Amino acid sequence: MIVAVIGLGYWGPNMVRNFLACPGVNRVLACDLDAERCEQTARRFPGLEIVADLDEALSRADAAVLATPLSTHHALGMRALDAGCHLLVEKPFTETSAQAQELIDTARCRKLTLMVDHTFLYTGAVRKMAALNQSGDLGRLLYFDSVRVNLGLFQHDTNVIWDLAPHDLSIMDHILGGAPEAVQAVGARHYYEHEDMAYLTVRYPNDLLAHIHVNWISPVKVRQILVGGSNRMLMYDDMEPSEKIKVYDKGVEIKDREQVWETLVSYRTGDMWAPRLEQAEALSLIAREFIASIKEGRRPLTDGESGLRVVRVLEAAQKSLTQGNVFVPLAD
Amino acid sequence: MIVAVIGLGYWGPNMVRNFLACPGVNRVLACDLDAERCEQTARRFPGLEIVADLDEALSRADAAVLATPLSTHHALGMRALDAGCHLLVEKPFTETSAQAQELIDTARCRKLTLMVDHTFLYTGAVRKMAALNQSGDLGRLLYFDSVRVNLGLFQHDTNVIWDLAPHDLSIMDHILGGAPEAVQAVGARHYYEHEDMAYLTVRYPNDLLAHIHVNWISPVKVRQILVGGSNRMLMYDDMEPSEKIKVYDKGVEIKDREQVWETLVSYRTGDMWAPRLEQAEALSLIAREFIASIKEGRRPLTDGESGLRVVRVLEAAQKSLTQGNVFVPLAD
Amino acid sequence: MIVAVIGLGYWGPNMVRNFLACPGVNRVLACDLDAERCEQTARRFPGLEIVADLDEALSRADAAVLATPLSTHHALGMRALDAGCHLLVEKPFTETSAQAQELIDTARCRKLTLMVDHTFLYTGAVRKMAALNQSGDLGRLLYFDSVRVNLGLFQHDTNVIWDLAPHDLSIMDHILGGAPEAVQAVGARHYYEHEDMAYLTVRYPNDLLAHIHVNWISPVKVRQILVGGSNRMLMYDDMEPSEKIKVYDKGVEIKDREQVWETLVSYRTGDMWAPRLEQAEALSLIAREFIASIKEGRRPLTDGESGLRVVRVLEAAQKSLTQGNVFVPLAD
Amino acid sequence: MIVAVIGLGYWGPNMVRNFLACPGVNRVLACDLDAERCEQTARRFPGLEIVADLDEALSRADAAVLATPLSTHHALGMRALDAGCHLLVEKPFTETSAQAQELIDTARCRKLTLMVDHTFLYTGAVRKMAALNQSGDLGRLLYFDSVRVNLGLFQHDTNVIWDLAPHDLSIMDHILGGAPEAVQAVGARHYYEHEDMAYLTVRYPNDLLAHIHVNWISPVKVRQILVGGSNRMLMYDDMEPSEKIKVYDKGVEIKDREQVWETLVSYRTGDMWAPRLEQAEALSLIAREFIASIKEGRRPLTDGESGLRVVRVLEAAQKSLTQGNVFVPLAD
Repeated sequence: MIVAVIGLGYWGPNMVRNFLACPGVNRVLACDLDAERCEQTARRFPGLEIVADLDEALSRADAAVLATPLSTHHALGMRALDAGCHLLVEKPFTETSAQAQELIDTARCRKLTLMVDHTFLYTGAVRKMAALNQSGDLGRLLYFDSVRVNLGLFQHDTNVIWDLAPHDLSIMDHILGGAPEAVQAVGARHYYEHEDMAYLTVRYPNDLLAHIHVNWISPVKVRQILVGGSNRMLMYDDMEPSEKIKVYDKGVEIKDREQVWETLVSYRTGDMWAPRLEQAEALSLIAREFIASIKEGRRPLTDGESGLRVVRVLEAAQKSLTQGNVFVPLAD
Repeated sequence: MIVAVIGLGYWGPNMVRNFLACPGVNRVLACDLDAERCEQTARRFPGLEIVADLDEALSRADAAVLATPLSTHHALGMRALDAGCHLLVEKPFTETSAQAQELIDTARCRKLTLMVDHTFLYTGAVRKMAALNQSGDLGRLLYFDSVRVNLGLFQHDTNVIWDLAPHDLSIMDHILGGAPEAVQAVGARHYYEHEDMAYLTVRYPNDLLAHIHVNWISPVKVRQILVGGSNRMLMYDDMEPSEKIKVYDKGVEIKDREQVWETLVSYRTGDMWAPRLEQAEALSLIAREFIASIKEGRRPLTDGESGLRVVRVLEAAQKSLTQGNVFVPLAD
Repeated sequence: MIVAVIGLGYWGPNMVRNFLACPGVNRVLACDLDAERCEQTARRFPGLEIVADLDEALSRADAAVLATPLSTHHALGMRALDAGCHLLVEKPFTETSAQAQELIDTARCRKLTLMVDHTFLYTGAVRKMAALNQSGDLGRLLYFDSVRVNLGLFQHDTNVIWDLAPHDLSIMDHILGGAPEAVQAVGARHYYEHEDMAYLTVRYPNDLLAHIHVNWISPVKVRQILVGGSNRMLMYDDMEPSEKIKVYDKGVEIKDREQVWETLVSYRTGDMWAPRLEQAEALSLIAREFIASIKEGRRPLTDGESGLRVVRVLEAAQKSLTQGNVFVPLAD
Repeated sequence: MIVAVIGLGYWGPNMVRNFLACPGVNRVLACDLDAERCEQTARRFPGLEIVADLDEALSRADAAVLATPLSTHHALGMRALDAGCHLLVEKPFTETSAQAQELIDTARCRKLTLMVDHTFLYTGAVRKMAALNQSGDLGRLLYFDSVRVNLGLFQHDTNVIWDLAPHDLSIMDHILGGAPEAVQAVGARHYYEHEDMAYLTVRYPNDLLAHIHVNWISPVKVRQILVGGSNRMLMYDDMEPSEKIKVYDKGVEIKDREQVWETLVSYRTGDMWAPRLEQAEALSLIAREFIASIKEGRRPLTDGESGLRVVRVLEAAQKSLTQGNVFVPLAD
């Protein structure tokens, strides 16, 4: 299979590296409007073939990987599909849910695979979180709280929500399942016209509350997700070199509402447990999943629909930002 | 001076211990409706005198310390002031701002000292934060983000906001200064009729955004405040045994908007610095401040007005909770 | 029972507090040559009775607690035993093993309980370590490595080994069991005639190697013990607020010595697990154990023999320090 | 300049990568006896030229990089020098000091550059440590304590001392300066004929004591160096993602020996400070230093002499291991 990587900015070279090493890939082409970037990347990856003309690249390739700015995803994605290429799109998928829907419909029509690069779903940590939830170990989910803050990297064409929150929204989509009911967002702009910090609150049925803090101007890098369940709770700290997932056998029980308060609430504090996580690099698994889903003619784990669900929440969050921070309902 | 401690539940005995050791205090009386608690506390503090009747205690005391449930603060506070006692009230000050105002007015009329126990303002860490801000070291403040979460201790008569957020709101009142414009709150109830977790967002003028996460059902105890300034940023981690305050010489600069983006944003990353903090126990300083402000006839650091300002934000947050999570403006 | 606490310096008041609260103790007496200390302690613990004369205190008491400098342990201990008092001695037990033996013999003769205050053996963490070893979970023990360093508190009459290493030696005595074969010590003096930092190496049978780093001039406080077993390994970090004990399902296997090296060594990396620990204060358990062992006429957990075994290692370590840092054998 | 990398095991490919990117290097050749390794590395680095015959590689190259097992360093190093190649040798430099001396003498005779890959001396952290010491900020050095432990990677031809301690010994050589007086070592073997854990103690003049704990069978990875100075102390924690160096303004003062003890020792506890560190990759700097020192005809920072000094300590430590763990003097 021949894969064309479109865009050689920050993320593109990572894609090049992983597709070069991916079984089933015979050749990797790459395109970028910036000739210097092309040269640099060519020097770094001698197996890579730089193709100056995008249409030529798409016509030669079986599959295209879009690692270009968000504003180009829809147009370039359509061009790739029209050229008959299977398509893997960098997150966030598209600027609007309508664009996402059009890409999904087009891919379906043409029987092409459409996948979104929601990287975290391929990490050992998130797969373990999903397994812990599916097995019922956590009990009923109570909350999901994510803090994703650090200094930089400001994006010039989008705010911090569109840049960082897709990671959390895709993890939530995968783990919490079900449909969020509404989203609310508040942010602040300190340096230019886009928010550099923001808080998202997402309501789910059954009092499940999700909250995301994204921030480009934090002095410390934090990547922490707390998930509260009625049986167990977990913390996912992505900055830990090992033991990224810690499961706490802790909980609260409200017994008899008639009794006096002191005997009514009990707190359970048991062991903590850090399960071993699979170590495979997420990007390598993404490349393999893309190629495998094409070959097997099946939906990839992070298909266009999952990308669309994330874009819908982003769109509603943006609406909340501009409409007085109200909760914006998420239609089914 | 004779001090009467009213209420011997969780907090009262701490007050007893500190007033027993406070210079200028000749005698400490204590009252509680629960005879067993009285006996236990008497055994623990042999210098303490238990007085069964509240009115007798108030009539003998020069100053009263209220460590009773929130719902009793106004009535018992009025009773203490009416008995001619100077008054120190546990946080949160009162259930409503009207109650707070009445206590303030009454104390002023009777020329009695009125103080609220905003404990954190007496810690070395918060005093250092205030000094760093006042000296201009931080530059223009951009945000204040607090996470105050742990497992338990559920309060039976109030939600997590009224229980934990007063700490952050009093720190914000002290450090950020100025008047917050509006507050928004969202929470969830999983066990009984009060919220066990909540997020507060407080808007200040000049794009200063404050946010507080309070939670009784977190498996880990976190006490972290991030303060972003245009010159420097700091993290206050109260769980650190030493080096609770870390100051980061980090920042962002947007230079020339005409230039291309890459050369436009620069990130400054310099040293980190953990200033030495004063070690005195906050509660001991509160006792001393209460006695000193009475003797000197001056306002205490955490006077009734500061308590009122915190209650106003709590009241508005509560309103936001019950009115669709909108931003509720804070009148001057 | 009447308990006399002898010595009101750093440790004595803690003993006073715990024996005052200990069931079965009717009265606590205290003695110290320094009248001011006596007064201070009396103010702090109103239930305490200060007795100026040591002999009077010993004649009135059923049991004595020695919290005086090491150089006085033997003489005062003998005096207490001669007065018919059961005896609890602060660690380290005595200056020499001969002194320890004499106290043990005298107590046995007089049918009095003799106990040494090896505090750590009463903590939930050490009890859990012992349980994990006894159950075979750790497999064959390979090493015990302790780091116990901080800034201060210099002792004027002893070096850092006699001050800090008894903690580790008593933990080793309890957990590793068996008899150490030899000890070697090396240290350095930077400020006065006693070592302010030292390293001890203790050889056990079967290639079990123990090592202790004690240091009064470290900028950071570290309290970490690593125990390597052939099945599992554990880390005990006493500075952690919770999860002090972490058990790692990790190990090494050397398979077939004939095969090529790469396939010969395998590393097993499994889950990490932090068992819940009992929270009771160690000092309170010591007081209870002392009283209970007296009443039941049985050996306390940390009896004179355990104190003697620790003193023997200290003595040999001291000899190593002064005799060219050689390994000094430990006789049975 | 043409560089030949000899040995493509664990470390060789890193050298290939860095020399391929190093300015002034026109071509990189590589040799390994294992044809499969050659093929794999060739695939990974398309700019690399595999040369099957070592002599051919050495005859074509201007400079050789030895990344082969220790036992081959002397023979292959001599062969490279005899072929007229400048030489960079993986640490540890050689098996014996005589071998090291012969390489040094040969390189000097032939006016060839001889360098040893003491990687850590090129990190921002160690360079900052050296600067802090040279500026006198630390005062008189009191101790150097290193813990370098983790699980694996067992070496089949050498023990843990020869594998891990060269890092610490080269840092000590660079920072402590002066000549160590004697070294003592103790270790244990649990799996095969080489020590898998060991403790080294190195005595320096003026009561400066250095100690190194190296261990292949620790469940946690620790890379911590404490340096105690009379003015300030520092901790270098290489596992920290940022703030690897922390400088503590802490110290001890013994004032008047005639006074009573309590007023005699004072502890100074001031700020902590984490200086910004340079981020350049150490391996890239090593490649540049090698090329630059060749071009400029000057000694590299980590020349053969520095390699020899480290080998002398290793040799003496090995002697201590086999001769009853005595201190083995280090001749000048």
